Amino acid sequence: MPDQSAFEPPADHPFGPHNLPYGVFSAPAAGTRRIGVRYGDHVLDAGAAAAALGSPHAGLLAEPVLNPLLAAGRPVWDAVRAELTAWLTDPAHRETVAPLLLPLAEVELHLPFEVADYVDFYASEHHASNVGRIFRPDAPEPLTPNWKHLPIGYHGRSGTVVVSGTDVVRPRGQRKAPADAVPAFGPSVRLDLEAEVGFVAGVPSPMGSPVGLADFREHVFGLTLLNDWSARDIQAWEYVPLGPFLGKSFATSVSAWVTPLAALEAAWTRPPERTHALQGYLDDADRADALDLRLEVRINGDVVSRPPFSAMYWTAAQQLAHMTVNGASLRTGDLFASGTVSGPEPDQLGCLLEQTLGKGPWLQDGDEVTLTAWAPGPDGARIGLGEVRGRIAPSPAPAA
Amino acid sequence: MPDQSAFEPPADHPFGPHNLPYGVFSAPAAGTRRIGVRYGDHVLDAGAAAAALGSPHAGLLAEPVLNPLLAAGRPVWDAVRAELTAWLTDPAHRETVAPLLLPLAEVELHLPFEVADYVDFYASEHHASNVGRIFRPDAPEPLTPNWKHLPIGYHGRSGTVVVSGTDVVRPRGQRKAPADAVPAFGPSVRLDLEAEVGFVAGVPSPMGSPVGLADFREHVFGLTLLNDWSARDIQAWEYVPLGPFLGKSFATSVSAWVTPLAALEAAWTRPPERTHALQGYLDDADRADALDLRLEVRINGDVVSRPPFSAMYWTAAQQLAHMTVNGASLRTGDLFASGTVSGPEPDQLGCLLEQTLGKGPWLQDGDEVTLTAWAPGPDGARIGLGEVRGRIAPSPAPAA
Repeated sequence: MPDQSAFEPPADHPFGPHNLPYGVFSAPAAGTRRIGVRYGDHVLDAGAAAAALGSPHAGLLAEPVLNPLLAAGRPVWDAVRAELTAWLTDPAHRETVAPLLLPLAEVELHLPFEVADYVDFYASEHHASNVGRIFRPDAPEPLTPNWKHLPIGYHGRSGTVVVSGTDVVRPRGQRKAPADAVPAFGPSVRLDLEAEVGFVAGVPSPMGSPVGLADFREHVFGLTLLNDWSARDIQAWEYVPLGPFLGKSFATSVSAWVTPLAALEAAWTRPPERTHALQGYLDDADRADALDLRLEVRINGDVVSRPPFSAMYWTAAQQLAHMTVNGASLRTGDLFASGTVSGPEPDQLGCLLEQTLGKGPWLQDGDEVTLTAWAPGPDGARIGLGEVRGRIAPSPAPAA
Repeated sequence: MPDQSAFEPPADHPFGPHNLPYGVFSAPAAGTRRIGVRYGDHVLDAGAAAAALGSPHAGLLAEPVLNPLLAAGRPVWDAVRAELTAWLTDPAHRETVAPLLLPLAEVELHLPFEVADYVDFYASEHHASNVGRIFRPDAPEPLTPNWKHLPIGYHGRSGTVVVSGTDVVRPRGQRKAPADAVPAFGPSVRLDLEAEVGFVAGVPSPMGSPVGLADFREHVFGLTLLNDWSARDIQAWEYVPLGPFLGKSFATSVSAWVTPLAALEAAWTRPPERTHALQGYLDDADRADALDLRLEVRINGDVVSRPPFSAMYWTAAQQLAHMTVNGASLRTGDLFASGTVSGPEPDQLGCLLEQTLGKGPWLQDGDEVTLTAWAPGPDGARIGLGEVRGRIAPSPAPAA
């Protein structure tokens, strides 16, 4: 007799039938990595279900990473989603599917896709203004002159993107306060989190073919939550003139679940009013490319902030258009993140740098940071965006 | 009767028996990509030779990219190199090997390895000082305060690394001169080259395990020539505060041949005198980690510069130590480049920005840039480092 309860998550469950995010899991006994779809508090072994039910997409779903599915394109994404919905909600499939629904607590979750290039933007006006005031107090304006004309971004290290739950070892590096004569070396003493949303590219674009605003949903599969861990002391000393490097590259955590854009139809909204005329490739006057996502930042279980993603000045569609307007290609697995999500209110700031006006306290060894988020779904449902969680582990003792 | 001449390149040939760089080629008829080793003006089908001669490394050499060989580590690298030397120089093998030596002119060369993360450094004091004077004329010093304490670097776009011979399409983007009220958009009008040397990581290192100076040669397989194409107008407008992005990400060209470090034993030399005390992980007072490489930059066949790599302030070993000191992992296929190679003399500057003091002329559509280099080898031989060549193609007309 199949476990019927797995098919009936509560109506208000954030991982109900309107969500269906993708991940990669392994069961302790089997060990091999498989594509899973979260449903309530269970994980559907999607490849096994596809094989059992004769899906034409069984091959794509039998992979150990999402990349082949990501590359397949929107018509396939839509067809697979329709199949998943049927498998999980049509009683005719229950007998077949029930043994393939594994309790979430019994599986291990892995990095769901191979990251190609990782780009981090800086798209919150509130964040950029707050950081500008803290890092460049003598500048005439908190925003640099380019900020309202283009979405500022930079490439990060894709090799150190890790899945939620991975410990983050406190990085070591150089730091130098303005008053110090020479730099010191040691574990970072200003370790911070950054609450962000990461977008996952599926369909590639060749060199020389920019992806315009209107093509965003053909190329981008979905999104993750992302914590862009930042060592503020290392970053402050290194970042002029070529940008952040070791202050960021030690680890970037992403949620184990990739939420498909198809689950977010009810979340699209207008971005903030533009204060400057935009170049044509960025002009979204007639578009609703912002997303109403509500983030929560917890440290050791306590909510410290609730940043609203809808307040971001630059949309992900603008970021993709900008990133490719120079002719740069896009690859399957490219990950581009929003930058810290901060709103206008004191309880909406997405990093400790802003929350503490640069003074700390900062993250301590043993602290656990958890980002969660939800989006409005159909009929008042909430779409859960999973969580990205990481605990700070101490720096290892230096080699003798 | 095998073609004996292929086995006997002239004694002064830059791709003689002391060099043996690796690449990936395809023959027009076969089409599949195979690992090749350059010998004189021929390419040895290394996988076929290994199979024919019963090498234990035939599997590694039968791949379509170098990555598995790169990952195999120095003992395997040394063993394969010893085999290649025997196959190409021992007359006992000639009958077997001769049909596998293909004229260079008859094969197509491909990107030799899958690039994991791409990092670009800024390691020439001459270049950084010259650029500082041009980009930041009002700053008190041409070098930023951190420059002599750590090798400044930033992540670039690995998805747009292309092999020598690939056309480079003039990028489009935003630019704004200080006197302009608003930015303009269009094809870059200040397109530049940057003559660099790229180092190719083979053996990975896990997160949390910095690679010290003494371990450089265990992790790094070899080097390529690299042209870090730069749109100075796009770069100047975008790069404050998070560094270069679209001004660089449209294309980075690498040579088709990866020169193994094993071919460069005679080229190690002392770096320039350090003017500042260095942190322990960068302190190379007792080391000879600089490389005596002589670069040449040609535009449309005319030599415009001869940058000396031995003048670089920061060595590749220091760059690797710095890149991982915060705990960042290293992956097989990671590529890290030196930054523009410039010497102290006016005819040793590695980019047009420096050569023209920021005034141009810049690269025009149709211009072909070629970087070549050589290193001293044993017994007065020269080790050729191949070439990286690219022609500027015009920006496509914008979509209507």
